Amino acid sequence: MLNLVPNKPLNVSDILLHMRRVHAGQQVVSVGADGTIHHTSYENVTDRVAQLANALKGLGVQVGDCLSTLAWNDQRHLEIYFAVPGLGAICHTVNPRLFSEQLAYILKDANSQWLFVDPMFVPLITPLLGGLPALKGIIVLGGASQLDPAWAALGNGIQWYDYESLLSGHARQFDWPVLDENTPCGCCYTSGTTGDPKGVLYSHRSTVLHSLAIALPDSAGLSATDSALIVVPMFHVNAWGLPYSGAMVGAKMVLPGRFMGDGAMLAKLIAQEQVTLAAGVPTVLQAWVNHQSTPVDNDLRVIVGGAACTESLRAGLEALGCEVRPAWGMTETSPIGTVNRAGTDEHRLSPGQAVFGVELRIIDDQGQPLAHDGEQSGELQIRGPWIVSGYIGKPGAEAFNEDGWFSTGDIARLYPDGYMHITDRAKDLIKSGGEWISSLALEEIASRHQEVTTAAVIAMPHPQWDERPLLLVVVKDPQNVDEQTLLDWFDGKVAKWWKPDAVRFVDALPLTATGKIDKKKLRSLYTESD
Amino acid sequence: MLNLVPNKPLNVSDILLHMRRVHAGQQVVSVGADGTIHHTSYENVTDRVAQLANALKGLGVQVGDCLSTLAWNDQRHLEIYFAVPGLGAICHTVNPRLFSEQLAYILKDANSQWLFVDPMFVPLITPLLGGLPALKGIIVLGGASQLDPAWAALGNGIQWYDYESLLSGHARQFDWPVLDENTPCGCCYTSGTTGDPKGVLYSHRSTVLHSLAIALPDSAGLSATDSALIVVPMFHVNAWGLPYSGAMVGAKMVLPGRFMGDGAMLAKLIAQEQVTLAAGVPTVLQAWVNHQSTPVDNDLRVIVGGAACTESLRAGLEALGCEVRPAWGMTETSPIGTVNRAGTDEHRLSPGQAVFGVELRIIDDQGQPLAHDGEQSGELQIRGPWIVSGYIGKPGAEAFNEDGWFSTGDIARLYPDGYMHITDRAKDLIKSGGEWISSLALEEIASRHQEVTTAAVIAMPHPQWDERPLLLVVVKDPQNVDEQTLLDWFDGKVAKWWKPDAVRFVDALPLTATGKIDKKKLRSLYTESD
Ligand SMILES: Nc1ncnc2c1ncn2[C@@H]1O[C@H](COP(=O)(O)OP(=O)(O)OP(=O)(O)O)[C@@H](O)[C@H]1O
Ligand SMILES: Nc1ncnc2c1ncn2[C@@H]1O[C@H](COP(=O)(O)OP(=O)(O)OP(=O)(O)O)[C@@H](O)[C@H]1O
Ligand SMILES: [Mg+2]
Ligand SMILES: [Mg+2]
Repeated sequence: MLNLVPNKPLNVSDILLHMRRVHAGQQVVSVGADGTIHHTSYENVTDRVAQLANALKGLGVQVGDCLSTLAWNDQRHLEIYFAVPGLGAICHTVNPRLFSEQLAYILKDANSQWLFVDPMFVPLITPLLGGLPALKGIIVLGGASQLDPAWAALGNGIQWYDYESLLSGHARQFDWPVLDENTPCGCCYTSGTTGDPKGVLYSHRSTVLHSLAIALPDSAGLSATDSALIVVPMFHVNAWGLPYSGAMVGAKMVLPGRFMGDGAMLAKLIAQEQVTLAAGVPTVLQAWVNHQSTPVDNDLRVIVGGAACTESLRAGLEALGCEVRPAWGMTETSPIGTVNRAGTDEHRLSPGQAVFGVELRIIDDQGQPLAHDGEQSGELQIRGPWIVSGYIGKPGAEAFNEDGWFSTGDIARLYPDGYMHITDRAKDLIKSGGEWISSLALEEIASRHQEVTTAAVIAMPHPQWDERPLLLVVVKDPQNVDEQTLLDWFDGKVAKWWKPDAVRFVDALPLTATGKIDKKKLRSLYTESD
Repeated sequence: MLNLVPNKPLNVSDILLHMRRVHAGQQVVSVGADGTIHHTSYENVTDRVAQLANALKGLGVQVGDCLSTLAWNDQRHLEIYFAVPGLGAICHTVNPRLFSEQLAYILKDANSQWLFVDPMFVPLITPLLGGLPALKGIIVLGGASQLDPAWAALGNGIQWYDYESLLSGHARQFDWPVLDENTPCGCCYTSGTTGDPKGVLYSHRSTVLHSLAIALPDSAGLSATDSALIVVPMFHVNAWGLPYSGAMVGAKMVLPGRFMGDGAMLAKLIAQEQVTLAAGVPTVLQAWVNHQSTPVDNDLRVIVGGAACTESLRAGLEALGCEVRPAWGMTETSPIGTVNRAGTDEHRLSPGQAVFGVELRIIDDQGQPLAHDGEQSGELQIRGPWIVSGYIGKPGAEAFNEDGWFSTGDIARLYPDGYMHITDRAKDLIKSGGEWISSLALEEIASRHQEVTTAAVIAMPHPQWDERPLLLVVVKDPQNVDEQTLLDWFDGKVAKWWKPDAVRFVDALPLTATGKIDKKKLRSLYTESD
């Protein structure tokens, strides 16, 4: 009977073909390096995707090849998102804010053969060329004028192209191969917040399923009537899958280019492009909130993910008239895991409930599942059809068990109504006198003090208690608040022994390449040992 | 690298487990045979699904077995929808309105081993028992009091059970097997509008994918905040997949039992249960519109499918404050194919655009694809991951081609903006003097006449022209309109030679088991040859 049931494989090119057949007239808005806003259609984008695929085929790109990008959220990056997987190759997005050694490590680890690079990132890459023997060529994301002939001499035989010349003259049609749906189509590395970035692979199947899950009404609720501002970088977990999901449903896509952290540009785009959905990490959304003084005109849903949504951010967004949807995910989870669409007061800052497809559980130190009673907390595990089952090169294999569960490294509580609360990261917990203190809980309390802009808590080594919490804060005006006031602020809010031992006032907290607070850096700055 | 990509199979039991973990408190509302409205929770339903699975396992049900249902839209039917596929068996829903010979044919063709039957349908089945050698047992959908001991003597060794006694005492937990996702999980037969019903099989994979597609914002837009009234029968293409999709997203499910055609009951449920989504065929929705005199209180989206949405139905629904979403699908397409969420005036009655996943094209008589220019029309073909690839027993194999295209038998136009218009069914076209006349177009015009309630056009054999159109109408008051008036109504609206030759005034039009106008019956009543 198996020959009678439906059996068409899921391919990323299905999204591309659907965009073209059903939503050819929809818009893609892309901000250039100089801040000008360009408008084009899905029709034009899909034409150019075909041209790019023809060009890459001409360069000899094969199924399974890895093609990397160092690029902003813009139209060309979107085209690469479809052309590379469409060919059966792997679209590997690299975070340009990484340190040079990390960049080199990642490109090598992923066995990158071609690199698409924004003109402004060329200087990041030229020093590394000697160490990338697999690399065949570099495609600069611009026109002929952005290609410096001198570059050709830099690598040992590495070819340089400019994107527009590469495309020009190629046919606007491509006969997309039907691929085994388990073929890898994308690759991302984790943020490196707790250790070295680790590479994960997505498949055509997982990408299509994840796109469907993202678009569901209780996830992002994406539709053809949306104008979706993709603030989260396309080099960070495929911009949470929004380029694929948005294209799948025919949404207008608004890509802020290199201005994704620029409050003024975001405000402008939101108004001009009548944005109805925006998605980003807390630090970046805070930049927009700080800039936007009057409520938005249109209905605007905001997905807040990548780190905890604080009360001040939620309240700030709500004051602007936004519907706030906190969410949780990881590079290893494509990333969607949970979304909070309709949480009651108790769950106001919760990243929500599992979306259909993913299963969550929490386990104790012995690996035993704990009750979902809203009280017990334990390490969060997840499984499902878009949860990866290993890292490239197999580090961290212990995080993946044979039943398909992946250990997230996050500490969480699960509630009977399906909501999750993240209480900490395993690596950020502070062990004091044999008991755990949650740095996340202390940060949340500190950030509720009206003088505090941002807060981070790290563990300080302690001779008697092993570790004790240290609070680092950025405050509005150091004149208005002192260490004792901030320490007293914890009284009655936590057990006495949870109270930080000391406060350090800092001008800014270091951020990771994805805009999260860099605790690894903080620990190396403020403690003797990491 | 294939071992690194996500690889969890899609199983119907994933929906069940998700219902329980995340939406245990959500409601299922079910109307009993006596019209009383019962409320229960997903928690209770999922408990009972596990009990049923344990009971069926105890009866020896195996992966691949076919279990049939003759049941209304109610809680027990919903439980069967999950327990049977969860075990790896096939849930085969049978339309109780079929003629007795069709019933016998379908149960035999599907190789049914167990039959769940509503008490009121037992008389339909008892005469057939001798002809069903594969049938092992019958489970009457009720308590012990609804089981007549005399029935045990009827079949040759067929066991009789009542549903509630069968469940009672069984554990509320079941360790659902992880199945190959291509395992069949469901089976439906086509409506038999144009010929004998043909059996199609759905798989776990196709059912999960279809459920995701149904829930998308531009399809039904199903969410946990919805109260979904499932008017379309659960014996008709799995109630368009709404029981699975609704459970997947945690929607409140409202099941009208045997009252799905009862305008008063529908009105009551819509008001009391604050229904936000309703889905049904035009004839049944019309019954509700006729009954409901004042606009509905809450936002209500209405999916109209299974047959063309007429202007009078659309206008009637809109006058009640509903958002109308015409849709198109077939048993062979799970059924979702297209939905019209936001069509402009030109597309007001169009069943919409392809949902992501399905691909549409139209072909000419030579099988050549035609342009999607909104002008040419041809036979509609469809392919995608929830389009079946053959019928049980392999009749009609010519409808399935090797590239995955299925020929629908519908005649359509496709527009550059992705919209589809169904112009006719191949079998309903009238061939007059070598040229085609669309019966659907003539019906649409007739139904716009203010005195006309329903209209059907069929081909009458004609010595000179081969076939000529005959119009059959139900009118509000035969005193107010005569044949000539109705014929004149076509002047200026169609080419002269399209005008029907004659009108027959009838009290009612025969409906098929699914509530569509039965043209096969009409043809046999009004013409010599079928
Ligand atoms: N809503 C949220 N609330 C709290 N933490 C979140 C939320 N969303 C994401 N996170 C954190 O982000 C992590 C996933 O981030 P990502 O995959 O970008 O890399 P990383 O875990 O920061 O880096 P690395 O794994 O290399 O240390 C989660 O494990 C979690 O700790
Ligand atoms: N929106 C619509 N507009 C016009 N026709 C529709 C619409 N939706 C469904 N249909 C008709 O219903 C058909 C599918 O119905 P279904 O699968 O229930 O069985 P059937 O085709 O009526 O019966 P059989 O195939 O046995 O003759 C479509 O092929 C189409 O003709
Ligand atoms: Mg991580
Ligand atoms: Mg049919």
